[in-house]
Amino acid sequence: MTIPAPSAAPVSYPKEGEMRWSKSERAIARKSFDRALNQELQEVIQQAKKTAAEIKQASELWELEHHLTQRRKEIDRKYEYRGSRLRYVFGSLLHEGRLTEHDLRGLHEDKLEAIRSYADFLAKVDVDA
Amino acid sequence: MTIPAPSAAPVSYPKEGEMRWSKSERAIARKSFDRALNQELQEVIQQAKKTAAEIKQASELWELEHHLTQRRKEIDRKYEYRGSRLRYVFGSLLHEGRLTEHDLRGLHEDKLEAIRSYADFLAKVDVDA
Repeated sequence: MTIPAPSAAPVSYPKEGEMRWSKSERAIARKSFDRALNQELQEVIQQAKKTAAEIKQASELWELEHHLTQRRKEIDRKYEYRGSRLRYVFGSLLHEGRLTEHDLRGLHEDKLEAIRSYADFLAKVDVDA
Repeated sequence: MTIPAPSAAPVSYPKEGEMRWSKSERAIARKSFDRALNQELQEVIQQAKKTAAEIKQASELWELEHHLTQRRKEIDRKYEYRGSRLRYVFGSLLHEGRLTEHDLRGLHEDKLEAIRSYADFLAKVDVDA
């Protein structure tokens, strides 16, 4: 993976912790966050059921165990509900197609810009990888 | 769990590593070991399939993951195929009813005595627990 060089343009949105989320924005964020998290967890559950049903030997069982450990840690890292981290959380979800901008309607432009910026960064990293 | 005090009677069977397993004894040991291990692994697999099929929410999935990690470590510890450890391995399996003395027919009395001795020790620990 190649990390893109820092852009020459100055960063225009506020630094970590400076972004204030209004009550209505927090409600939108919480709802979108919970929906994306629940959807991803349901995917893991359904996949685990399917995989478990097809297991024939112990090595496949330990593969499932390892996979679940990895997915749990990944999901724990990804869904970190803290104001200063939300731009990254939503940026990732936007990038992965787990959320659309439609789901984030009602957030102020400063948040949307920060979220989009991180989603764009991830898209760029993907292309360079 | 209460660890029983050491018996006053001197230990009569050879120390670790001094016990020599003949070729025919090794064949008997290997067969019994493999059968018990495979049976225990099959139990874990069948139980995991059943549990996975009934999962409704993520917390149950992570419980299954945790349980599988514990079982894997437990089985790794329990089934240690090394000459000097076999008395403990078979002693445990005898104690748990995963093997009978019938399965160990053909082992010389020194091995059987050491295996029984450990199985008896475990039974005593269980009663005291």
